[in-house]
Amino acid sequence: MLRDGRLSKEVDSRFSKFTSSMDMDTRLFLADIKLNKVHVSMLADEGIIKENESSKILEALDKIKKEGMDSLDLDPALEDIHMAIENKLIQIAGVVGKKMHTAKSRNDQIATDLRLVLKEEIAEIIDKLQNLQNSILDQAKKHIETLISGYTHLQQAQITTLAHHLLAYHSSYKRDIDRLKDSISRIDLSPLGSCAFAGTSYQINRKKVASDLGFSDILENTMDGVSTRDFILETNSALSILSTNLSKMVEDFIIWSSSEFGYLILPDEFSSTSSIMPQKKNPDLLELIRAKIGTILGHNQAAFIIASKLPQSYNRDLQQISYHLWEIIDISKDILTILPEFISRCKFSKEAMDKQIKRGYFFATDLADYLSKELNYPFREAHKIVGDLVKHIDKSRESIDLEDIQNYLKEKSIDINSKILNEILDPKSSIISKKTEGSPNFDKIKEYIKKNESKN
Amino acid sequence: MLRDGRLSKEVDSRFSKFTSSMDMDTRLFLADIKLNKVHVSMLADEGIIKENESSKILEALDKIKKEGMDSLDLDPALEDIHMAIENKLIQIAGVVGKKMHTAKSRNDQIATDLRLVLKEEIAEIIDKLQNLQNSILDQAKKHIETLISGYTHLQQAQITTLAHHLLAYHSSYKRDIDRLKDSISRIDLSPLGSCAFAGTSYQINRKKVASDLGFSDILENTMDGVSTRDFILETNSALSILSTNLSKMVEDFIIWSSSEFGYLILPDEFSSTSSIMPQKKNPDLLELIRAKIGTILGHNQAAFIIASKLPQSYNRDLQQISYHLWEIIDISKDILTILPEFISRCKFSKEAMDKQIKRGYFFATDLADYLSKELNYPFREAHKIVGDLVKHIDKSRESIDLEDIQNYLKEKSIDINSKILNEILDPKSSIISKKTEGSPNFDKIKEYIKKNESKN
Amino acid sequence: MLRDGRLSKEVDSRFSKFTSSMDMDTRLFLADIKLNKVHVSMLADEGIIKENESSKILEALDKIKKEGMDSLDLDPALEDIHMAIENKLIQIAGVVGKKMHTAKSRNDQIATDLRLVLKEEIAEIIDKLQNLQNSILDQAKKHIETLISGYTHLQQAQITTLAHHLLAYHSSYKRDIDRLKDSISRIDLSPLGSCAFAGTSYQINRKKVASDLGFSDILENTMDGVSTRDFILETNSALSILSTNLSKMVEDFIIWSSSEFGYLILPDEFSSTSSIMPQKKNPDLLELIRAKIGTILGHNQAAFIIASKLPQSYNRDLQQISYHLWEIIDISKDILTILPEFISRCKFSKEAMDKQIKRGYFFATDLADYLSKELNYPFREAHKIVGDLVKHIDKSRESIDLEDIQNYLKEKSIDINSKILNEILDPKSSIISKKTEGSPNFDKIKEYIKKNESKN
Amino acid sequence: MLRDGRLSKEVDSRFSKFTSSMDMDTRLFLADIKLNKVHVSMLADEGIIKENESSKILEALDKIKKEGMDSLDLDPALEDIHMAIENKLIQIAGVVGKKMHTAKSRNDQIATDLRLVLKEEIAEIIDKLQNLQNSILDQAKKHIETLISGYTHLQQAQITTLAHHLLAYHSSYKRDIDRLKDSISRIDLSPLGSCAFAGTSYQINRKKVASDLGFSDILENTMDGVSTRDFILETNSALSILSTNLSKMVEDFIIWSSSEFGYLILPDEFSSTSSIMPQKKNPDLLELIRAKIGTILGHNQAAFIIASKLPQSYNRDLQQISYHLWEIIDISKDILTILPEFISRCKFSKEAMDKQIKRGYFFATDLADYLSKELNYPFREAHKIVGDLVKHIDKSRESIDLEDIQNYLKEKSIDINSKILNEILDPKSSIISKKTEGSPNFDKIKEYIKKNESKN
Repeated sequence: MLRDGRLSKEVDSRFSKFTSSMDMDTRLFLADIKLNKVHVSMLADEGIIKENESSKILEALDKIKKEGMDSLDLDPALEDIHMAIENKLIQIAGVVGKKMHTAKSRNDQIATDLRLVLKEEIAEIIDKLQNLQNSILDQAKKHIETLISGYTHLQQAQITTLAHHLLAYHSSYKRDIDRLKDSISRIDLSPLGSCAFAGTSYQINRKKVASDLGFSDILENTMDGVSTRDFILETNSALSILSTNLSKMVEDFIIWSSSEFGYLILPDEFSSTSSIMPQKKNPDLLELIRAKIGTILGHNQAAFIIASKLPQSYNRDLQQISYHLWEIIDISKDILTILPEFISRCKFSKEAMDKQIKRGYFFATDLADYLSKELNYPFREAHKIVGDLVKHIDKSRESIDLEDIQNYLKEKSIDINSKILNEILDPKSSIISKKTEGSPNFDKIKEYIKKNESKN
Repeated sequence: MLRDGRLSKEVDSRFSKFTSSMDMDTRLFLADIKLNKVHVSMLADEGIIKENESSKILEALDKIKKEGMDSLDLDPALEDIHMAIENKLIQIAGVVGKKMHTAKSRNDQIATDLRLVLKEEIAEIIDKLQNLQNSILDQAKKHIETLISGYTHLQQAQITTLAHHLLAYHSSYKRDIDRLKDSISRIDLSPLGSCAFAGTSYQINRKKVASDLGFSDILENTMDGVSTRDFILETNSALSILSTNLSKMVEDFIIWSSSEFGYLILPDEFSSTSSIMPQKKNPDLLELIRAKIGTILGHNQAAFIIASKLPQSYNRDLQQISYHLWEIIDISKDILTILPEFISRCKFSKEAMDKQIKRGYFFATDLADYLSKELNYPFREAHKIVGDLVKHIDKSRESIDLEDIQNYLKEKSIDINSKILNEILDPKSSIISKKTEGSPNFDKIKEYIKKNESKN
Repeated sequence: MLRDGRLSKEVDSRFSKFTSSMDMDTRLFLADIKLNKVHVSMLADEGIIKENESSKILEALDKIKKEGMDSLDLDPALEDIHMAIENKLIQIAGVVGKKMHTAKSRNDQIATDLRLVLKEEIAEIIDKLQNLQNSILDQAKKHIETLISGYTHLQQAQITTLAHHLLAYHSSYKRDIDRLKDSISRIDLSPLGSCAFAGTSYQINRKKVASDLGFSDILENTMDGVSTRDFILETNSALSILSTNLSKMVEDFIIWSSSEFGYLILPDEFSSTSSIMPQKKNPDLLELIRAKIGTILGHNQAAFIIASKLPQSYNRDLQQISYHLWEIIDISKDILTILPEFISRCKFSKEAMDKQIKRGYFFATDLADYLSKELNYPFREAHKIVGDLVKHIDKSRESIDLEDIQNYLKEKSIDINSKILNEILDPKSSIISKKTEGSPNFDKIKEYIKKNESKN
Repeated sequence: MLRDGRLSKEVDSRFSKFTSSMDMDTRLFLADIKLNKVHVSMLADEGIIKENESSKILEALDKIKKEGMDSLDLDPALEDIHMAIENKLIQIAGVVGKKMHTAKSRNDQIATDLRLVLKEEIAEIIDKLQNLQNSILDQAKKHIETLISGYTHLQQAQITTLAHHLLAYHSSYKRDIDRLKDSISRIDLSPLGSCAFAGTSYQINRKKVASDLGFSDILENTMDGVSTRDFILETNSALSILSTNLSKMVEDFIIWSSSEFGYLILPDEFSSTSSIMPQKKNPDLLELIRAKIGTILGHNQAAFIIASKLPQSYNRDLQQISYHLWEIIDISKDILTILPEFISRCKFSKEAMDKQIKRGYFFATDLADYLSKELNYPFREAHKIVGDLVKHIDKSRESIDLEDIQNYLKEKSIDINSKILNEILDPKSSIISKKTEGSPNFDKIKEYIKKNESKN
C-alpha cells in the first residue's frame, strides 16, 4: 500500500519475508491499538481531525481489539503490525481510516509500543523474581541450623549454614529487582509525536498523549526519541546481570547434586535419566538454565553490536534489536517460572553435609583466631601455626581427632585445655560465636527472614 | 518411557517443555533414520542381533522415513527426536524395536547426527556462496572500465574501477569457501560407537559404521567423541568470519545508496519507502543484513560461552549449542539466498561516480610518484609538495583546474609540461599505468574474471 | 609469607607471575590504606586491639601513604597490594603490624576497595560526560538556524537543524549520566566485615566502618558481600550503553567528514594524512573511538562470561573481572577526555549542507501534510500522490523546480498557488512550522539550550 | 613528518597519544626490517631505485636491526613503527632513505608485517600445544589401569580409566593443532605491493617479494589485500576454540581438587593459601586460566565487532583489531607455557577414585547389557529393571552389597549366579570387556599412547 507512489515495481516476496517483523510484532498488538486510540483522541481534541472521524476510527479500533490478532492479515508484504492494523482499520472504517496516521510515523509509533510493552514485561519479571525469592526464603526457614561447608575456590573453607548460603542468593536478587525498577525511569518516557524524527507541523499535544498512555513524561528531543534503543540495552543488561546472579545458584546446585557432594536431592519430576545408564538421575533443568544463561549473554551482546554500528536516526537495523530483547525477556521469564517450582521441591541432605563437616579442617580459622585473641599471637603467626598443624594431620581419617591436635600444639608449647579446644572444634559453636551483621548467626538469619517475608 | 525404572514420579510437563529439544531436532530426522539403519545393519552383521530382527527394524525405519516427521509423536515428554523415532518404531515393529538402541547411546547418536546434517548444510552454503560470487562477477564484467573513487578512512583516496572494488569482495569469499572446506576434515569423523562415553562391551565395528555413513574416519577417543562440540564452534566461527566479509560489502552499498554518494541505485522490488516521507527509497534489505550479522556474532559468542563452562563429558548444555548453530546456519542461508538476487538487480551510476572523480584530488599520488620517479625527488619530499598544493587549491570548485596546478608548481620551480600533467590528471591513465598484479588494471581484471568464471 | 604453614614448597615464580594482580592493584593503593585505617580504628574502639597498637599501625599507614606506591615491594610473590602494604607495615611497625588483618579477609577487603575506587571513577566519568555535553551545547548554540538534512536509513528524509541533530546526542548522554548515578546506590554498600564470607567471631562494628568509609550502608549477607561482582557488571553495562550512544555521533561524524557529504571539517591538529596519498585528511580519531567501542563491548562481554561460570563464593576468577572493569573505565575516560576537545574544534560547513538541501525532496512530507490538512486528502492518498511526483522529477537537476511540481499537480487536478507552494518548498518555513516539543523549532531549541546550560 | 604538506597545524599531542599504535608495534620491529630489506632489494632489481641507493638503505636497515628497538625514537607523534624505522633510516642514510617508501604504503606494509609475525606466533603456539600433549601423555602412561568414574551431567555414569579421560583432552588438542595449521594457508599470502589499495604505477614484482619473504603466494586483489583482517579473526577463532577445549580440562581439575572429589592433589608450588583460613590449598592457577578463557572470548568478540562495522578499504579501526590479536596470542602462550609444568606436577589419588567407585552404581549399564545380551531382554526392558533396582538400594552404604542385588533380581525371577554377578560388579572387568576403538580398554589405550608418542 505504502509503495503505491514512489516505488514502481511490486515488492519481491523474498524481500518481504526477509524484512518483515510481523512475527515478533504480534506481541505489540494491544499496545499498538491503545496507542492509536490515544493518538486519535488527541487529534480530535486538538481539532486536527473531526470528532465524528475520530469516533469512527475509535470504534473500528475497538472492534479490531475484540476480534484479536487472528482477524488481521499478517502477510509479510504488509511489513509490520502497524500496517496490518491500519489495513484492517481501513477495511472496517473506510477511507477515514487513512487519517489515523496523521501526525505520527512508524518511527515514533514503534518506539512507543516497545516502551509500553516493556514496562509490562518488566513488572511481570519482577513479580517472578519475588516468587523466586519466596521459594528461597521457604527453604532457608527450614535450614536455619543446618550446617554446611562454605566454599572459596570450591575448597572447603569455613562452616556456615544452609540458610545463610541460600540467603546470599536471595540477597543478590534484591539488587536485580532494584536495578530493573531503576531502569523504568528511562523506559517510562513517550517518544510519540517525534514522527519521523523532526516532529510535525500539526499542533499535537505530546504531553497529553504521554500522560494518557501512562508515561511519566515525554522523551524530549524528537530525533533522539525515534532512534535511541538504549532503554532496550539497559533492560538486556539488567537481565544479563540477573542471569549471572542466577548462574551462581545453578552452578552450586549442579555441583551439590553430584554423588561426591550429595547435598542436593533433585526432585524426580524435574529430572531425567539416561538412555543407557539406568542408575542416572540428571540435573538437566539446571544444565539447560546454565546454557540458556549463555544464550541470554549472546543476545545481549548481539543487541549491543547492532546498536553500535548505526548513524542517526531511524535505521531498519533497530528492528533486529527488538528481536534480541524479546528473546531475553522470554528466556528470563521461562527460567523464573520454573525455578521457584524446582527449588520448592528440592531436598537438602543434612547427612551429606555433616559428613563433610566431620572430615574438614573448619576449626582452622577459629583456632587461629583463638591463638590471636586469647594467647596474643599476632594473627599472621597464628595463621602459620595452624597451617602447619593441618599439614601434619593424617589425611585419610574420616573425622578430626582432638588428641592429635592437642599433642601437636603441646610440641609448640601451646596449651589449650580440652574443653576450650572441643568448643573450637565444635562446628555449631563456631556459628554461634559469629555475631557479625549478615553472618550465619542464627538470630541474624531469623531477623533477615522475618524482615524479608513481611516485605512481599 | 525411559523413566520407568529409576525415577518414581511422573515428569512435570513444565520440565519437559523447558528441556525438550524436539523443535530443533526435526532437522535431524532423516540423518537419525539413516544412522539407525546403518547401526542396525552392523549389529546384524556382527551377530549382535539376528538378521530377522534387523530386517524388521530396517523395514519399520523405512516406513517411518516414508511417512515423514508428521507421523511422529512430537510430545516434549519424549524429550528428543531419537526417542520419538524409537517410540514410533516400537509401535510399528513391536518389542524387537527395543533392540535398536543396543550398543549406542543418545550421546554418541546426537553427536553423529549433528555431523551428518552439518556436512550437508555446509555444502549448501558453499553452493550459495558461489552463487553470490557469480552475481558479483557478472556485475564486475559490466564495470571493468567504470572508474570509481576508492576510499580509505571513508575519504576519497585513489581512483580504482568498480570491477576492482567488487572483486575485492569476490576475492574474500574465496577464503570463506576454503575455510568451510577445511573445517569439514574435522566434522567428517564418526563418534558413533562411543556410546555414553566409554564404548561398549558389544563387539561393534566402528570403522564400518563410519564408512557406511559416509564419514572419512572415526573420532577415536570415545569420551572426546560424545563431549566435543568444537566442530560446531568452528562452523560458527567460519560463518561469523564470512559475515564480516559480507558486512564490508553491505556497509559500502548502504553508503553508496545515500543521495550524497548516489553510486548505487537500489532495485525497487527490494526496497521500501516511508510511512510518512513519500520520497524515500530505503535500503532495508542491506540494513537488516547488517543487523543480522550482529545476530550471527551474538549466536557465535553464546555457543562459545556455553562450551567454555563445561566439565567432561556429555552435559545437557550441549543441546543449546546446537540451537545457536542452527540459527547461524539459517540466517547465513537466508542472507546468501537473497543477496545474489539483490546484487543482480542493482544498478551502478557512472554519472555519480564521475562527478566525484572530477571533484577529487586523485591525481595527488600519481603526481607525487611522478615527482619522485621522473624528477628524482625523494618520495617523502614529493609527498610534502603535493600535500601543500592540495591545501591551496580552491575547495569550492566542481572540478580541478590544470592551470592552477601548473602555476603552483612553477612557484616551487617545478616544471611539468601540460601534456604530461594532463595525463597525470586523467583518471583513466592512472588506472592504465598500474600494472601491478591484483590492481584495477583492465587486463588484470579481465584475467581474474576469466580465471574465476571457468572455476564455477 | 602466607605460605609458611600449609604449603611446603616455595611457590614457583611462574605461578606468582601468572596469578599476581599487582599490576592493576596499584590503583587500589590509596583506598586500601584508607580502608585499613578505618578498620584498625574500629578494632581499637571496640577493644579488639589496644589503643597503642592502633596508634602504631595508623602512624605506619600514614607513612606508607606519604611515601607512596613506589616505596612498596611489588614482587608478584606478594600476590597483591594488600599483602604488599601489610608487608611494608610490618617492616615499619614491627610485629604489631600483624594485627592489622584481624577480623578481615582479603575477600572482603578487595570487594570493599573496588567499591571505594569505583565510586570515584564514576564521579570522574560523569564529570567528563558533562564536559562533552557542554562542548555539544556550544556547537548547538552556533547552529540553531543551520539547516541540515536529517536522515533515516542514511537516506535524506526531512529538514532539521544542526542544533536539533547535535542535541539528540546531548539528550542521550543525559540518560547515561542518570544510569551511572542510579548504579551508585548498588555500589555504595560496604562488604567489609564479611571476612572470608561468614563474618567473624570478633565483635566488629560493620555499620560504623561503612559509615566512616563513606558508604551509605552495609551489604548485609556476608557471603553475597565477598562474592558478588554484579556492581561491576552494572558499571560495565552502563559504560557499554554510553559507548553505543557515543557511537551514533562518531558514525555520523565519520560520514559527514567524507567529501561526498562534506558537512564536517576536521580539525587539522586532530587528523592524520596518508603516507602515500598527500591529499588525505583522515578522521583517525573518530575511527579509533569507533574501534575502541568494540573493545569496550568485548571487555563487557568477557566480564559477563567470567561471572557466569562461578559457584559461590570467592573464586580467584573474580580478579580477572576487575581487569575488564579497569580497561573499560580507562578507555571510557580516554574517549571522554579527547572528544570534547575535538568537538570544540570541529567546523560545520553550511555550504555543504545547503547544497544537499537544494537537491533533496524534503518538501515531500510537508506537501503530503498540506494535501491532507488543507485539501482534505486522507494522509495515505496524499502520500501516494507525492511519492508518484518524486518518481517523475528529473533526477539529474541540482535543485528543485517549482514549475515542474505545479505542472505535475495540475495533471492530477490539484491546484496549489505559487506562494503556498513556495512556502512548502522553503526548507526554513518547514522548520518554523514545526511547533512540536523537542522538534527543531528554533524557540524550542533555544529553550532546551538555556535549560541545560544553567544545569551544569 | 608526514604532515608537512596537507595539514597546517601541529598535531595535538593528545591526538598522537590516543591514536598511536607504537606500543604494540614493537613486536613488528624485526618483521618490518625484513620486509623493508626485501622490498628495497626488489626496487633495485627492477631498476626502480639505483643499486647504490639500495645498498645504503640495506646497510642502514642492518644497523637499525643490530641496534634494536631501543635505538628508535618511539614518540607517539611518529604514529607507528614504520615511521619510526623510516625516521631512523633517514637519520642514518640521509635523504636516500626517503626512497624506501617508494611503491608501497603503510596499508600493505602493516598487513604484511602482521602476517609475517603471526606465522611465527602460530608455530610457537603449536609447539607449546605439543608440550601440553606430552605432559598429558606422560600422566596417561602412569594411569592406564587407574579406574575412575566417568561423568555425564556431573553425575557418576560409567567406569573408565584416568588414562582414557586424560587422553580425551589430548585428542581434542590434536584438532586444535590441525585447525591452526589449516589457518596458515590463508595467512601465508603476501599483500605487499597492494600499496594504498590500488597497486602502483611502478613496475614492481609482487611474486618475487612474496617468495623472498617466505610467503607461499601473493594475496591477489590489492583492495582486499590491505583491508581484510579475516586471517586475524580466523586465528582468534582457532585460539578461542582451543580455549574451550582447555576449559574442559580446567573445569574437571578444579572439581577434582575439591575435598569432596579429592582426585587431584595440587602441586604446592603452583597453589596458594588463604589470608585467613590456614588450612586452605587453592587452585588459583586453574581458576585464573578459567577466567582468562573468558578474556580470550571477549577479545575474540571485540575483534569481530570492530571488523563488522567497516566499509572498504583501510580504516584506522583495523589497528585495534591487531590489539585484540596480540592479547589473545599472549594469553594463549602464557597459559600453554604454564599448564604443562602444572600437569607434570599434579598427583592423582587412586584412593579417592576407588572410594567413589565402591559407592557408585557403575554396574548398572553392564548389568542391563547382560540382561539384554545373555537373557535376551530387549534393552529398554533391561534398562527399566536395573533402574528400578538402583532406586531400591540403600543409599547410605559405602559399598555395593552383592547379596542385596541378587535378592532383588530373584524377586523379578531373574537368576544370575554369583560368579557372573561378581564379574559384572567388578569395575575392572567392565573395562576389560570393552573392546571398542577409542574406549578405555587397556590395550587400545597403550596403542594410542605409543602412536602419539612417536609422533612428537
